[in-house]
Amino acid sequence: MTAPTINDGADWFTEVCEKGGSAFSLRVRKKLHDEHSPFQHIEIWETTDFGNLMVIDGFVMLSSRDNYLYHEMMSHPALFTHPAPKRVVIIGGGDCGTLREVLKHPGVQHVLQVDIDERVTRLAEEYFPELCASNHDPRAELYFGDGIQWVKDAAPGSIDLVIVDSTDPIGPAEGLFSEAFYRDCHRALGEAGLIVQQSESPLLHYESIIRPMHRSMRAAGFADSVSLQFPQPVYPSGWWTATLAGKQAVVEFRQEDARAKAFATRYYNAAIHNGALAQPEFFLHGRTD
Amino acid sequence: MTAPTINDGADWFTEVCEKGGSAFSLRVRKKLHDEHSPFQHIEIWETTDFGNLMVIDGFVMLSSRDNYLYHEMMSHPALFTHPAPKRVVIIGGGDCGTLREVLKHPGVQHVLQVDIDERVTRLAEEYFPELCASNHDPRAELYFGDGIQWVKDAAPGSIDLVIVDSTDPIGPAEGLFSEAFYRDCHRALGEAGLIVQQSESPLLHYESIIRPMHRSMRAAGFADSVSLQFPQPVYPSGWWTATLAGKQAVVEFRQEDARAKAFATRYYNAAIHNGALAQPEFFLHGRTD
Repeated sequence: MTAPTINDGADWFTEVCEKGGSAFSLRVRKKLHDEHSPFQHIEIWETTDFGNLMVIDGFVMLSSRDNYLYHEMMSHPALFTHPAPKRVVIIGGGDCGTLREVLKHPGVQHVLQVDIDERVTRLAEEYFPELCASNHDPRAELYFGDGIQWVKDAAPGSIDLVIVDSTDPIGPAEGLFSEAFYRDCHRALGEAGLIVQQSESPLLHYESIIRPMHRSMRAAGFADSVSLQFPQPVYPSGWWTATLAGKQAVVEFRQEDARAKAFATRYYNAAIHNGALAQPEFFLHGRTD
Repeated sequence: MTAPTINDGADWFTEVCEKGGSAFSLRVRKKLHDEHSPFQHIEIWETTDFGNLMVIDGFVMLSSRDNYLYHEMMSHPALFTHPAPKRVVIIGGGDCGTLREVLKHPGVQHVLQVDIDERVTRLAEEYFPELCASNHDPRAELYFGDGIQWVKDAAPGSIDLVIVDSTDPIGPAEGLFSEAFYRDCHRALGEAGLIVQQSESPLLHYESIIRPMHRSMRAAGFADSVSLQFPQPVYPSGWWTATLAGKQAVVEFRQEDARAKAFATRYYNAAIHNGALAQPEFFLHGRTD
């Protein structure tokens, strides 16, 4: 596909969502970086209103302006659902934004980030330094390698929470959306273990991604699962989900601890957590997308 | 501004959000209608994936695919907040989608829709017939005229709920975003009276529209106000609000009635209503946008 442009005199980065018949554009000042890593094509743009923008293989990954929505919702709901999370593994998440949020929880003792592409992290350090502010926390460990293999090799019961902060289910991330991977996660997780994974748009991917993810997670042994709802303006449709599955129920969480949280957030709080658990009517009664 | 286009061989309708530095596009098959009414420029497009699309003065009003989000959230939360809504006035709302939702409530006795532009309704009847399915309900009345004047002339205490379903606060709708208008609404409303108004994007318009709207509504005499949060993919950022203000508290609603609702919705339910009341952390602690 030829890279589309908007002809109004300004420069724009545009991501076309072919299947959805929609496109989203950000006005840009200039391209700050462009490289083909061993794994993917990474671009960094300076936008006029959304800060810096990271694009991988043509898909928007994050902007400075609104990534807090995604990173907070990928971390805090799961962490406040587990009774006492100490050992966390992030699969993907190379921009380190999720890592930063996880480390805000004082009870967490160790966070391992496993991203296949070290270049994403090196570029985040340069262009999104605020997201990398906690990379030198003594509890943080950055490993660059294959997340699927890492989970396969993990000792049984050795993790409290797996966060799958990946690209879309095409290309290198495809295997992260499979029952086999969830089964390996289930084995690696402790008694109250949880997995949370970004699961795309309720408007565009309910039948194609969200429902199959629930089926695969349940088939892999998880007792409960729910798709947390939140806004994410730079992703297709602006409406996104993170699907949370657990060996125990996932709709109850440590409300008191969430209300008394000792760290700052921009979007997440206990009320927002409750709100994210609310399922749209069509999730409950079915509908094709 | 020249109408921008995406150069990838397909045809696209694009709305540029100048202030936000973003743009949203839908792939189109053809333009079905184009007219300059006495009030505005109305276009109807056939899209490839979002059904029909209505555009007014270059801004997306609604698509067949996702308008249920907006119309349900503009009506049901307010209706389930009022103890017994019987007399409803919709200012704007010419596409009749909000009217249809309001009429799903059996206790409602009369709904008056006051849109300045009859052509919007006539085109909705032709291109969005599903939204106009209840236009001949004996409780429905369609009046084409100036909503600001209508409210000014309304008998004091004669309405239970005013729904302001307008275009953006530029052009003909500007006066609908003013303290003077809210004061007239307050006077026209009964004891438990409520107003709900579309109030744009939390990401893009928090400081410029949402906060001032709360201030104006409170200054006009309303005792309480809250911005309901919901997704709306075809509007800028995909994240939208409806601000609800009342002569009494607006954060409590008839939960049992909402749970037992005897009509179908695609998004709204009692849990979603509770979720929409949750305020992002930056709403509570302030931040400029």
